[in-house]
Amino acid sequence: MALTSVTFLGPQASFSHQAAVEAFGTSAELIPRPSFSDAFAAVQNQDVDYAIVPFENSTNGSVLQTLDLLADADAAYKDVQVCGEHYLTVHHCLLARKGIFASGEQDYSSITKLYTHPQAWGQCENFLGEHFKGVERQDVSSTSKGAEIVSKETTERSAAIASRFAAEYHGLDILAENIEDNSNNTTRFLVLRNTKSERSSRDSFEHIKAQNRQEPPTNIPAAKKNKNLISFMVREDTPGALADALLIFKSHGMNLTSINSRPSQKAAWHYVFLVECQTTTTDDGQEIATGVVADLQQVTEACRYLGTWTDQLVSTGN
Amino acid sequence: MALTSVTFLGPQASFSHQAAVEAFGTSAELIPRPSFSDAFAAVQNQDVDYAIVPFENSTNGSVLQTLDLLADADAAYKDVQVCGEHYLTVHHCLLARKGIFASGEQDYSSITKLYTHPQAWGQCENFLGEHFKGVERQDVSSTSKGAEIVSKETTERSAAIASRFAAEYHGLDILAENIEDNSNNTTRFLVLRNTKSERSSRDSFEHIKAQNRQEPPTNIPAAKKNKNLISFMVREDTPGALADALLIFKSHGMNLTSINSRPSQKAAWHYVFLVECQTTTTDDGQEIATGVVADLQQVTEACRYLGTWTDQLVSTGN
Repeated sequence: MALTSVTFLGPQASFSHQAAVEAFGTSAELIPRPSFSDAFAAVQNQDVDYAIVPFENSTNGSVLQTLDLLADADAAYKDVQVCGEHYLTVHHCLLARKGIFASGEQDYSSITKLYTHPQAWGQCENFLGEHFKGVERQDVSSTSKGAEIVSKETTERSAAIASRFAAEYHGLDILAENIEDNSNNTTRFLVLRNTKSERSSRDSFEHIKAQNRQEPPTNIPAAKKNKNLISFMVREDTPGALADALLIFKSHGMNLTSINSRPSQKAAWHYVFLVECQTTTTDDGQEIATGVVADLQQVTEACRYLGTWTDQLVSTGN
Repeated sequence: MALTSVTFLGPQASFSHQAAVEAFGTSAELIPRPSFSDAFAAVQNQDVDYAIVPFENSTNGSVLQTLDLLADADAAYKDVQVCGEHYLTVHHCLLARKGIFASGEQDYSSITKLYTHPQAWGQCENFLGEHFKGVERQDVSSTSKGAEIVSKETTERSAAIASRFAAEYHGLDILAENIEDNSNNTTRFLVLRNTKSERSSRDSFEHIKAQNRQEPPTNIPAAKKNKNLISFMVREDTPGALADALLIFKSHGMNLTSINSRPSQKAAWHYVFLVECQTTTTDDGQEIATGVVADLQQVTEACRYLGTWTDQLVSTGN
């Protein structure tokens, strides 16, 4: 049987690539795609078995591109569903070309230029304020792109802010590790599959993930909670429709865990709501979610079931 | 009495500036601020009577900076409340230096460079595809900044994509009008005041707005609906809390019209929900909203009333 194939948001050594390696291991075939919509299209067209896309960051909130593609205004991805999730803690390192700094050197004053993604400057303000006041900064399209640029320079003494994963991929020295202000900054990725594919399933993904952890599958707690994603549309001028829709979740014993709304692109002030919910029991959840969808179809427009998967969040409250 | 002062998100001739002129008229003192947080701080510090900030676009969705400042994780803006809203339709024009093109000229082939905000390229794709294939594009920080640059050039034959308002402000010729793909693209602005200020109120704003329309205030329909904004926090690991909170709105006869969630910045996967709601009756709404808040305080954390104002949306459904 061919290798399991997984697409991620490129370039190589991006945080999405790291999430793909953590979730699927290095024995899967991992294929970068340049955009979110390319990753969704790859799953819809069954070019790959799975895609892994960022969905939500603990500091910055929802990833709007992913929400819009799940909302799927043009019905371009109608067979794409969520079958898993993966949490990745975002750590940043200061990286330089191999050997140009003595091991353990703490004096960065000879570094003349820094490269990273605009968001990473803001995530490392304390470290940058302490060591890099006034040093030239160059924005790049991704942290791993910055690491790549630094790895290819021959004359400048520049550095990149990127992950340990990017350092290893591009063969860079790590001058300082965990330089981010908030060491708990975490991104939740969703794993997508095509419902018509026989090469992918929720169970298959969980089996791959468990193997990759190098733990026997029996180590997964039996009482793991499920998560479900359902979308529907409500017009702003239909009084009570949103509350009625949300009540349906409760009447089926589903807890609402998140609600996002996006413009439907059908008309102004017409929204798609994307609701994540959980059953309070330890059952599979999918059957209940299907019941919720059937009832939602009475009070909403274009209601769609977008998948059931196993909750991977290790919460202090659990 | 001193002029009413209003701050808006700069630079001069921005869409926020245009919204401020439409809502407050030219007799108010209009003051640009460089950032969203500066505009909120100006209201909190009573440096101005009002601020007008973009809240939601009919195509792109919520403006996250405004949501985060209303969510107010650090309690920096605790006296800031919403007292009004204003809808602005976003129209784009092709603008050039006065006199360098003959009036009515439809041949743009001598234009060598275009300036606009990155979002505006995407909003004018059809027009640009028809007339400007392969022409150099320069991103600028705002559409009005592009208009300013073009107005100051002396040698180049460049053009900017910006509003009619920016054309008039910077003294530019309008070569083509309404070049946007979607003529209904609309931004909703919120009007903010300080609850401790005696110089501002919901009634004062509505009076100013009505005067500025050059209609007598009695022309405002008596049955205008209200809108209310309330924020609260729910932990992801508190099953049922979100549904319970949303049920409270229904039990007070409040319709949910929008729900946004943002990371609380207190802990990972801990959210602030910002809920807009409407009473079904024609009353003021504020008293009911206060009752909702009192009940919400039983099941949520840090619940806050963020204002009541008159719904300005002219919907086909009304």
